[in-house]
Amino acid sequence: MAEPLKVGLAGLGTVGTSVVRLLEDGRDKLSARCGRAIEVVAITARARGKKRGVDLKKYRWVGDPLALARDPSIDVLVEVIGGAGDPAKAAVEAALAAGKPVVTANKALLARHGQKLAALAERHGVALNFEAAVAGGIPIIKTLREGLNGNAFTRIYGILNGTCNYILSRMEHDRLGFEECLREAQRLGYAEADPSFDVEGHDTAQKLSILASLAFGTKLDPHAIYVEGISSITLADLDAANGLGYRVKLLGVAVKTEAGIEQRVHPTMVPKDSAIAQVMGVTNAVTIDAERVMPITLVGPGAGGLATASAVVSDLADIARGVRGAPFGRPASRMTATRKAPMQHHEGGYYIRLLARDRPGTAATIARRLAQQNISLESIVQRHDAAEKRAASGRSGAPVPVIMITYATSEDAVRRALSAVRRDRVISGRPQVIRIEKN
Amino acid sequence: MAEPLKVGLAGLGTVGTSVVRLLEDGRDKLSARCGRAIEVVAITARARGKKRGVDLKKYRWVGDPLALARDPSIDVLVEVIGGAGDPAKAAVEAALAAGKPVVTANKALLARHGQKLAALAERHGVALNFEAAVAGGIPIIKTLREGLNGNAFTRIYGILNGTCNYILSRMEHDRLGFEECLREAQRLGYAEADPSFDVEGHDTAQKLSILASLAFGTKLDPHAIYVEGISSITLADLDAANGLGYRVKLLGVAVKTEAGIEQRVHPTMVPKDSAIAQVMGVTNAVTIDAERVMPITLVGPGAGGLATASAVVSDLADIARGVRGAPFGRPASRMTATRKAPMQHHEGGYYIRLLARDRPGTAATIARRLAQQNISLESIVQRHDAAEKRAASGRSGAPVPVIMITYATSEDAVRRALSAVRRDRVISGRPQVIRIEKN
Repeated sequence: MAEPLKVGLAGLGTVGTSVVRLLEDGRDKLSARCGRAIEVVAITARARGKKRGVDLKKYRWVGDPLALARDPSIDVLVEVIGGAGDPAKAAVEAALAAGKPVVTANKALLARHGQKLAALAERHGVALNFEAAVAGGIPIIKTLREGLNGNAFTRIYGILNGTCNYILSRMEHDRLGFEECLREAQRLGYAEADPSFDVEGHDTAQKLSILASLAFGTKLDPHAIYVEGISSITLADLDAANGLGYRVKLLGVAVKTEAGIEQRVHPTMVPKDSAIAQVMGVTNAVTIDAERVMPITLVGPGAGGLATASAVVSDLADIARGVRGAPFGRPASRMTATRKAPMQHHEGGYYIRLLARDRPGTAATIARRLAQQNISLESIVQRHDAAEKRAASGRSGAPVPVIMITYATSEDAVRRALSAVRRDRVISGRPQVIRIEKN
Repeated sequence: MAEPLKVGLAGLGTVGTSVVRLLEDGRDKLSARCGRAIEVVAITARARGKKRGVDLKKYRWVGDPLALARDPSIDVLVEVIGGAGDPAKAAVEAALAAGKPVVTANKALLARHGQKLAALAERHGVALNFEAAVAGGIPIIKTLREGLNGNAFTRIYGILNGTCNYILSRMEHDRLGFEECLREAQRLGYAEADPSFDVEGHDTAQKLSILASLAFGTKLDPHAIYVEGISSITLADLDAANGLGYRVKLLGVAVKTEAGIEQRVHPTMVPKDSAIAQVMGVTNAVTIDAERVMPITLVGPGAGGLATASAVVSDLADIARGVRGAPFGRPASRMTATRKAPMQHHEGGYYIRLLARDRPGTAATIARRLAQQNISLESIVQRHDAAEKRAASGRSGAPVPVIMITYATSEDAVRRALSAVRRDRVISGRPQVIRIEKN
C-alpha cells in the first residue's frame, strides 16, 4: 500500500474536530477505499488550550495556519477556519503555491477569491476541493463538477440556508411570527447572535455564486447577485401562499436567460407539490434543471459538524486516490465574465399583497395601474371574511388585504405599477412582493 | 490539448443514439471540462440498416461487439446492448482484458457478473463505470463511490423502477386498479409487453444489489435479495395507507442489521411527509442514511434515452480526465460475502388487511393469534361504513375488511400469526401484508 496522505488541519471548531474523529474512526474503511491511509499529522487553531472533547495530544501543534501550510511534513491542507480574509486566505494560497492540494469548507473565501485560488491551484497542478462549502452534507459540488457532465444545465436553484428554512418552516407549522421563530432559532444554535448574514440572504448568495460557476462556467462574482432576505415575510403571506397552492422558501436561483446568467436570492413561492417545497427545517436542497431531461433534486443536511466534516473527508479521499480536476470543472482561464442579467429584466409570475384603502375607486385604480404595465392577473383575492368581521364590529373604512397572482411579467413592470399605486395613495404601507418559481 | 478519447459504441437503441447526439452537441463544453475531446470512432449494433434518426455514416461500422472491443483504434468501450449474457458480457470482458476502460448501462450484467468484471478491471488497471445502470439520470453511483466517503452508511433505499412508481401513482391519483394502470403504462411505453420483470420487482432487485455493494462492500449477489412485486396491491390498500398517513411505494432496501446486510424489494408503506413519498410518476429516488447525520435523498429521472445517455457521457468524461477508482469503491478482493440476513428475521412495523368473516368470536380469534406471537397493534380499523351499507341492503354476513398496523415485530411472527388465523377459518382469501419503512 502507498504512503499515507498526511493532512495538516487548520481550524479546530465543530467541523475540524469532527474531521479528526471521522479520520480516526474510518481509518480502515478509507484505506480500503483509497488504497492508502489518510492521517492528520499537524494541527493549528486560534486557542491551543481550549477543551474540544477530542484527544489532540497525538497531533503536532503548529503555531499558525500559514506555518502549517508551509510545513514540509504535510501533503495536504484542510482549512476550516472560515472568513474571506487572512489567516484562511494566506494559508490556502501558501499551500497551493507550495504545490499542496487544499480542502476547504470556506464559502466566503471562495465567493470572494475563488477565481484567483482556482487559477493558482491549476498553475501548480493541485486539487482545490470544497464540497463542504455549499450545502454541507449534500454532494452537490461533485455532482456539478463531475457527475452531470453530459447535461446542458439551464437552471440551478435551492434552499441553501438552514436558518432561513427553519424559520419559514416553523412560522408555517406553529403559526408564529418571524421574530419569534428567529429567537427560537438563536436559542437552538441555528442562528447567530447577529442573524443578518443568514436572514438577509447573504450566506445563500455566497453559496449560489459557487454553484453558478460550476453549472454555467461563470466567473465567481457575489456582486452579480440580487439579494433579498426573509425578514419581511409574514404569516399572512404564508397563509395566502398555502391557499394558492404554494409554499414560501428562501431560494438561491441561477438561470440561463437570453440576457445572460440571472442570479438572485429572494423569498420565493414554489408549488407545494415540488420536491423543494417538501424540504422543511434546517434541511437543504438543490434542484438542477437541464435541457430535455427531468430535473434532479438533492436533499440533505446543509450544516452540522459531522455532515460538513464528512464532505471534507470525502474531498480528502479524492485527493488520496489522485483525482484532480479543475476546481470549477473547467480551466479558470476559460471561465467567462458573467453577463449580469439585471434584476429589472427578470421575468416570472408575482405574488403581490396590498392593504387597499376601503374607498370607492380603489380597485379600479389598482387594476388600471397594472394594466398600464401590461400585467395580467391569474387570480385576485380580497379578504372578504376579514372585511365582514370589521363591518360587523362597525370598524369599516380600515384597509382590506388584496392578494394578487400575476401571469409572467417583468420585475420592471411590477415595480413601476406598484410605485404608481403608492403615488395614487390607495394603499397603506409597502406592498409585499414575492416572486414565483415554477418547477 | 491531449489526444481525443476514442470511443467504440456497442448498441444503437435510444440510449446509444442519444450518446452519439450528446457527444456531438456537447463537444466543446466537454473538451473544456476534460482537457481533451471525446469522439465516437466506431459503432456496432444488431441491425445495420435500421433507421435511427441520427446520422451514423461518419462512424466506422464494426461487425460485432466483440470485434469492436478488440479494435485497436478505440480507447474505451461503451456497452449499451443490455442483457446479462453475450454479446454484452463477452465484449465487456474483451475490452477490460485488452486494458481498455468500459462504460456500461447494463444492470443485469453487473448484478450477475459484476464481481468478476470488477476484479478484471482492477487487474488491468482500467475503469469500469456504470452510472447509467441504476436510476439513469441520478448520479447515485458516483455519490456512493466517491461523494460520501466520510459517511458510515446504515441504510440505503429507493424507488428504482419507474414503471412500478408510475402504476402506483396513477392508481392513487386516478383511483384505478392495478391492471388498468399497467395497461396504460404499456400504452405509454413505460412497461414492456411482458411486464413481470418490472412489476414483480426483479429490475429493482438487480439495481439494489449494485447499490448495496457500493454502500456496504458486499459481494454482488442478486439471490441474496428477498423480492416481492406490486401486482397484489389494491386501491383499498392505497386508501388505507392514505388514511393512516402513509403512501405505498415499491422500494429496494439494503440495511445493516446485527444479522448482516438485509436486502429486500417489496411494496412498502412510507410516511407521507418523507422525501421518498413525494416522488410520483416515473421518477426515481434514493435515500442514504448514515450514522449520526441526516439522510440524503437524490431525486430524478430513472430512465429515458437522454437521461441515461447523460450518465454514460459523464462516465466517459471521468475516463477522459483520467479518474480511475475501484468499480465498487474498494478492491473487489476486499468485498465481503454478504451474510444474508434472512427475511424471516426482518423487523419492523406491518400493515395487515384481512377480510374477516362476520361471525361472533372472529375478532377475538384474530387478536389471540397476534398476541400469541407477541405482536402489538398500533391501530386497528374495521370498515364500519362498508358493513353498515351491507346491513342496510340486508346482505349481512359478508366479510368485513379489518386493517391493522403493528408495532415493530418480526416477519416470522407475522407469518406465523397469519397462518394460524387462516387455519382458524375466520378470514376469507389471503391476508394482505405491506411492510412499513420509517424515515
